[in-house]
Amino acid sequence: LKKRLLGPCVTFFPQPATLIATRDNDGKVNLMMASWVGIVSKTPPTIAVSLHHNRKTLANILDTGVFSVNTVTSQIAAAADACGLVSGKRADKRLLTGLKIVPGVLEGTPLVAASTLNVECRYQRLVELGDYRLVMGEIAEIHACDRAFDDQGQGNVQVFDPLVYLGGLREYWSLGEKQGDAYRAGLAFLDQEEA
Amino acid sequence: LKKRLLGPCVTFFPQPATLIATRDNDGKVNLMMASWVGIVSKTPPTIAVSLHHNRKTLANILDTGVFSVNTVTSQIAAAADACGLVSGKRADKRLLTGLKIVPGVLEGTPLVAASTLNVECRYQRLVELGDYRLVMGEIAEIHACDRAFDDQGQGNVQVFDPLVYLGGLREYWSLGEKQGDAYRAGLAFLDQEEA
Repeated sequence: LKKRLLGPCVTFFPQPATLIATRDNDGKVNLMMASWVGIVSKTPPTIAVSLHHNRKTLANILDTGVFSVNTVTSQIAAAADACGLVSGKRADKRLLTGLKIVPGVLEGTPLVAASTLNVECRYQRLVELGDYRLVMGEIAEIHACDRAFDDQGQGNVQVFDPLVYLGGLREYWSLGEKQGDAYRAGLAFLDQEEA
Repeated sequence: LKKRLLGPCVTFFPQPATLIATRDNDGKVNLMMASWVGIVSKTPPTIAVSLHHNRKTLANILDTGVFSVNTVTSQIAAAADACGLVSGKRADKRLLTGLKIVPGVLEGTPLVAASTLNVECRYQRLVELGDYRLVMGEIAEIHACDRAFDDQGQGNVQVFDPLVYLGGLREYWSLGEKQGDAYRAGLAFLDQEEA
């Protein structure tokens, strides 16, 4: 493919559209839209979230030791985007968007009720990266939308409806079609080699 | 939404389906399928990739100091998946899958020609997380598919066609429909508040 050079920037996709939910020391909930989020270890299960150092969300995590990562679906896309438009220092974003908060299993962890997946975390450690802080959270519990599972326990992606954020393009997209099963789609190449 | 508890696991989605391309000290290219990948800082532009400590890809990055993160599209999904099925220690995955490699701007960085986005990185530092190593790469250059851009320089998501990996479900999905513009979709909530 013919390419054009974009320079050293952060255009990379797809990344997950998520809401990070935290509380301050007074128990007030803050929601922040974030896409610099992902799994980083299985031993133990760990998720990492990169936050600008002056974020209220970062202060809340360091104060309370817990947070949750909540998937953004098509249904709550506009409400979630609103959480990216105002600072938790200035406005009560829950009032603004009507997103209902429910408790997790860890004391004080707020979860977004409408999200199809809530990843509940204990703060583990922090890595400084320029103006950003990479926050590692040990996954304590994952709450998944019950009706997304069939009788065999297989999850239906379309019910989860996790939105993707396209960095650089600044767009949210839903998923379209399944293109293959991991650890299976490539078997054709191996058979070819062995033939 | 009614939820079921999955316990402390790494079911989190969506994550980007990527190929990490590296060379060993003899110049031999290795390709690895990875989805534990994401942007972690803008100061400077930095991408992080989490790798099991015994991966050939990790050894190659530490030996050569460079690597690239390449998007997986529908067209190369099966070939990319094959790279997740065999170890680079055992097989030459390029021979196996026919993926063409082109040079980057940094000496020795291999890029996957068929990928619509190549993120070229200098190794920066490493964080130990149990059996995994979170590798930070400073982004030196991003190569983007030229024909994805219109005359105004706006990128077309469908041309980029970046696949999403659904962790836990072990499925690759393409994108479907745009659900909104970031920093715009939420404006309706703000107007409401001010009214």
